[in-house]
Amino acid sequence: MSSSFGRLFVVTTFGESHGAGVGVVVDGMPPGIAVDPAAIQHELDRRRPGQSALTTQRKEADQVEILSGVFEGMTLGTPIAMLVRNTDARSRDYDTLKDVFRPGHADYSYWQKYGVRDHRGGGRSSGRETVGRVAAGALARLALATVNVSVVGGTVQVGAVRATRRDWDQVEQNPVRCPDAEAAAAMARAIEAARDDQDSVGGVVEIVARGVPAGWGDPTMSKLDAMLGAAMLSIPATKGVEIGGGFAMIERHGSETNDVFENGRHLTNFNGGISGGISNGAEVVVRVAVRPATSIGKTQSAATKAGGSAPFAIEGRHDPCSCPRVVPVAEAMMAVTLMDAWLRQRALRGREA
Amino acid sequence: MSSSFGRLFVVTTFGESHGAGVGVVVDGMPPGIAVDPAAIQHELDRRRPGQSALTTQRKEADQVEILSGVFEGMTLGTPIAMLVRNTDARSRDYDTLKDVFRPGHADYSYWQKYGVRDHRGGGRSSGRETVGRVAAGALARLALATVNVSVVGGTVQVGAVRATRRDWDQVEQNPVRCPDAEAAAAMARAIEAARDDQDSVGGVVEIVARGVPAGWGDPTMSKLDAMLGAAMLSIPATKGVEIGGGFAMIERHGSETNDVFENGRHLTNFNGGISGGISNGAEVVVRVAVRPATSIGKTQSAATKAGGSAPFAIEGRHDPCSCPRVVPVAEAMMAVTLMDAWLRQRALRGREA
Amino acid sequence: MSSSFGRLFVVTTFGESHGAGVGVVVDGMPPGIAVDPAAIQHELDRRRPGQSALTTQRKEADQVEILSGVFEGMTLGTPIAMLVRNTDARSRDYDTLKDVFRPGHADYSYWQKYGVRDHRGGGRSSGRETVGRVAAGALARLALATVNVSVVGGTVQVGAVRATRRDWDQVEQNPVRCPDAEAAAAMARAIEAARDDQDSVGGVVEIVARGVPAGWGDPTMSKLDAMLGAAMLSIPATKGVEIGGGFAMIERHGSETNDVFENGRHLTNFNGGISGGISNGAEVVVRVAVRPATSIGKTQSAATKAGGSAPFAIEGRHDPCSCPRVVPVAEAMMAVTLMDAWLRQRALRGREA
Amino acid sequence: MSSSFGRLFVVTTFGESHGAGVGVVVDGMPPGIAVDPAAIQHELDRRRPGQSALTTQRKEADQVEILSGVFEGMTLGTPIAMLVRNTDARSRDYDTLKDVFRPGHADYSYWQKYGVRDHRGGGRSSGRETVGRVAAGALARLALATVNVSVVGGTVQVGAVRATRRDWDQVEQNPVRCPDAEAAAAMARAIEAARDDQDSVGGVVEIVARGVPAGWGDPTMSKLDAMLGAAMLSIPATKGVEIGGGFAMIERHGSETNDVFENGRHLTNFNGGISGGISNGAEVVVRVAVRPATSIGKTQSAATKAGGSAPFAIEGRHDPCSCPRVVPVAEAMMAVTLMDAWLRQRALRGREA
Repeated sequence: MSSSFGRLFVVTTFGESHGAGVGVVVDGMPPGIAVDPAAIQHELDRRRPGQSALTTQRKEADQVEILSGVFEGMTLGTPIAMLVRNTDARSRDYDTLKDVFRPGHADYSYWQKYGVRDHRGGGRSSGRETVGRVAAGALARLALATVNVSVVGGTVQVGAVRATRRDWDQVEQNPVRCPDAEAAAAMARAIEAARDDQDSVGGVVEIVARGVPAGWGDPTMSKLDAMLGAAMLSIPATKGVEIGGGFAMIERHGSETNDVFENGRHLTNFNGGISGGISNGAEVVVRVAVRPATSIGKTQSAATKAGGSAPFAIEGRHDPCSCPRVVPVAEAMMAVTLMDAWLRQRALRGREA
Repeated sequence: MSSSFGRLFVVTTFGESHGAGVGVVVDGMPPGIAVDPAAIQHELDRRRPGQSALTTQRKEADQVEILSGVFEGMTLGTPIAMLVRNTDARSRDYDTLKDVFRPGHADYSYWQKYGVRDHRGGGRSSGRETVGRVAAGALARLALATVNVSVVGGTVQVGAVRATRRDWDQVEQNPVRCPDAEAAAAMARAIEAARDDQDSVGGVVEIVARGVPAGWGDPTMSKLDAMLGAAMLSIPATKGVEIGGGFAMIERHGSETNDVFENGRHLTNFNGGISGGISNGAEVVVRVAVRPATSIGKTQSAATKAGGSAPFAIEGRHDPCSCPRVVPVAEAMMAVTLMDAWLRQRALRGREA
Repeated sequence: MSSSFGRLFVVTTFGESHGAGVGVVVDGMPPGIAVDPAAIQHELDRRRPGQSALTTQRKEADQVEILSGVFEGMTLGTPIAMLVRNTDARSRDYDTLKDVFRPGHADYSYWQKYGVRDHRGGGRSSGRETVGRVAAGALARLALATVNVSVVGGTVQVGAVRATRRDWDQVEQNPVRCPDAEAAAAMARAIEAARDDQDSVGGVVEIVARGVPAGWGDPTMSKLDAMLGAAMLSIPATKGVEIGGGFAMIERHGSETNDVFENGRHLTNFNGGISGGISNGAEVVVRVAVRPATSIGKTQSAATKAGGSAPFAIEGRHDPCSCPRVVPVAEAMMAVTLMDAWLRQRALRGREA
Repeated sequence: MSSSFGRLFVVTTFGESHGAGVGVVVDGMPPGIAVDPAAIQHELDRRRPGQSALTTQRKEADQVEILSGVFEGMTLGTPIAMLVRNTDARSRDYDTLKDVFRPGHADYSYWQKYGVRDHRGGGRSSGRETVGRVAAGALARLALATVNVSVVGGTVQVGAVRATRRDWDQVEQNPVRCPDAEAAAAMARAIEAARDDQDSVGGVVEIVARGVPAGWGDPTMSKLDAMLGAAMLSIPATKGVEIGGGFAMIERHGSETNDVFENGRHLTNFNGGISGGISNGAEVVVRVAVRPATSIGKTQSAATKAGGSAPFAIEGRHDPCSCPRVVPVAEAMMAVTLMDAWLRQRALRGREA
């Protein structure tokens, strides 16, 4: 408790990394929306391991099965359950992890919380849990598209390398998922360097929602910024989130950051499209700090269940930088958050948006 | 919808800045906890306007009345309602604000959302709403103290001035609420400079929770980081939140940020006391980006309801930097978030903590 | 936890019978709805003690104060807090109740649950808590009226006396609140007989909602019948609820109770206006079993905190039949439940109703 | 929205009667509880169609697959997803139901609510949705057993035939699931008579929980009676619920129904083990009114989508009385409700129960 996100568009994920499968139940999807399973599969394929040399080589087909809620290609308004089987789950022997708490991972905190744990590759704390989020996000996108709201995103920083352009069309053209082709190459080199050093590197993912009308988000505790904060910081490996100008606004003055509004548009967007917790008609902009991946080949000291410590290194290949695969997950969480805010606004005003 | 935070320790605030009053209902406070009303009043006094030359001079006694849930100095386990009357609410004529959307404020987005608004000084979007949060946080602190969990906080950056020390005892010794006496003086000068320029300046508030045992926080959607993200970004004027190393971790490697755990403690705390969304026994550390205050004396262009624009400047005195007064609010939201996580863990394990 | 009802129209009551006051926060009231405080006061007056010789003579003015959420006579869409002060709270000495668990009351179960209790007249378990419900219900009625939904109710059985007519206009014409003038007289005699015998008697309250369009109520766990069941059984002294034909349908056959639908209307209404948990366009009909009041003058054995027992009798006058005062409360809970279902449907379909 | 029940033990069902399958996600199951899949399958087998001549002959193996949350036979504390495939889903041609609203069914109200519907055998409104409830209830039973709480139930009335004994051991000895062997035979005859007449008959199911300690249930809106009311009235075909004495208490007096408490036990149990919404240590007793089944062979008038009406009769065999199969479902909902109340109490008091 609790694996659910949202009040009206309720996304509940389930599954461990090496159990039978992972999945999601989406409760609150409006009826009458056309669902092309390929659109969902497309998003899952973006999240899938093994897409490039920069990501882990775990083999997972990640084929989604829609179990309910869709009939004759149309949503029924009933819960939509989706399941992805784990197929590469038994390929390694995880017994060595049974009595050790891997550095940086959640092994120790899970053990303290639950008193039991699934030591096979992270269990519930694995990034594999995000499969369900991405599937739910794909549904949210389909619904949001009916009111012309869309979501894009990409990696805008890796280590010290920053993107200076936002050519969102570039994102799927490079393995880093960077909206700046030139920076992408430098980012790839930074990732390879970390990998070659048996290490990992962090980054920043930026997500932008377009077409969001003014009025979404619910003061005071369900402000759109607050819900986005929860959404993003619930993604594994994230340790920071900022809206619009974020931390960079601190060194500025109110006269710069007040986003003067003239002729129906804001002249700047320091507030990232959200004023007082409510969308203001500008693009909604969120950036997420992605920690260096915890699974590294370098040997570190690991605590043991017995109370001592032992040298430890991750074998096999893992993602040296999580950003490329966090992108579709963070996009999904943006879509899911907007979906919930949209439905709340429909409830409040009794009209489409 | 919705003004409630938390699942088991449910904090619901109410009130507009110039209505009859502001307050809170706290549902889920455990029974049998001694409540000294002075402890609650103390926290409200820290949040109150007019404490120093650096803050707004609005006169509010902010005397809290406990309406329910406490009997013979002890919590009953029933909802605790607390009310603070607005006393300085009629001292200004707000009619000039009726048809204008102040730059940077939530006037326009509220109008778009609700179709009506209380134009008197921000109404519900006013920082005055945080009175209820602080009162709730004071209750949470009383309960958390029974298991030796405490919360401290302070302003660690104003404009370009950064605190380099964390002497939490210093916080109430300077009007900036900075845990670094030397930096405090420089921060005060930065605030005064902004004020003298009819402008405002941003900053960073850091909150630290001590004594949190390993095991609090609920994967996957109610991770402790996620709940803290929502808590902090629901505070007016916040635009960013980071846990532990936060955005600064991006330029580091996994071998540095994995927080090796030996002999029962973490050697570093890049993860801010949270692993996999669950407290890991280290101090829980959160930093919040506080935007430059939107109410400034400088003239800016404001949109009007009629669709045009007009020059606009805030009259009277307002906070040129929100940080000193955000500190007790952010501390309160940390306490409230921990309280909820604690009660969830009690439910999960059926024991004290 | 928890004193809140509803998901989108969230009603949170607070207050003990002999504390400072009782009240409610309503979060989710749509904006732009005219609020006449007299309409709220009118409903509270119907619930108030001392209205007739058949009810308790506790003196309470029950004057409601709206603390927030209403501006210039219009709802803002923000939480509406309402407070009723307890004025007759100190008139009795409750010390004799400190160490005794009154028969039939919740004294013992509260003590077991919380480990502390407010022994003054029931504390939180007192029927006085329903003040907040009635105030919330009055708001719900104002909103529902904008789509021509209205709620009526009355006492339809007292002891063995049953109403055979449903002249809702009669309800406020007799102290029993019975929609059958003839039966009302017999009911009054039954109540007086119980009272004269230092005893109490039970009854049935029926609530009818008119104008509810087809489509309200959310399968599968938030079916309209389920939500009404929770709403009614959360009212003190209720021990049963039935929808439409209810328990009387058991001895019938499907061919009778299927409510054949022709020419846009149901020929019968055994299902009480709800099919599959969703309103079907017919009147929504609910009946509530109201237990004989627990406070009686007759001497009974009461358990003591010390573990023994002692003869016990309630002094002073109490309601010998709760039905007349349950009527406005049950009406309020019907209105609150429909309000929540309505807002959910607006979210689902993105239109008025 | 919404298909979830419970706040801490959250049960979310999914699935349509003729889609890929039906199932449930249980979020909030405590960790470390042994799970024997056979115990879950046993409960599903009790609910399964085709168990006797008195129930529908639809062929469904109803084999449950646990997809997550259980590792090495032990709960992990993570969500437990369970899936049952529909195997007999394509055996009939449902096209004739496409444009007709079956009498008594939810076809029309679903259509009004959602604007689309799955016309194949009821879709989401089918009793088949209860598969997920029963699986969740089986988990709840396993957890409750660790504190010696158990749940029994049976059919206590069919048509005019009432059980006068409560030999719970008899329940699985007769196809009616009646705890009174003699009455069971008469009930079976009543069901057969209805069936032979192409009709159906109603009944009452009683559920009893033993071993519930005093203190479970949360005033004021989540009272144990209220939660049981919602739980039971969310089961298809139910139209009434009563606690303890229920409607029969109306004709009694307070001096009889106050359940005098002496020497640690209540002398009577008119309040069904619940005082003020909190368990009082006595057995928790609930009775549910089960409407005559809507699917009958008799020809009735049915409305058509086109706005007219047409003669309609259900072909094939259906349950002429729902009670025998409602018994395991109502037991499951009792277990689920108690589970949630138990976990809330653990949160409140920070101890086992």
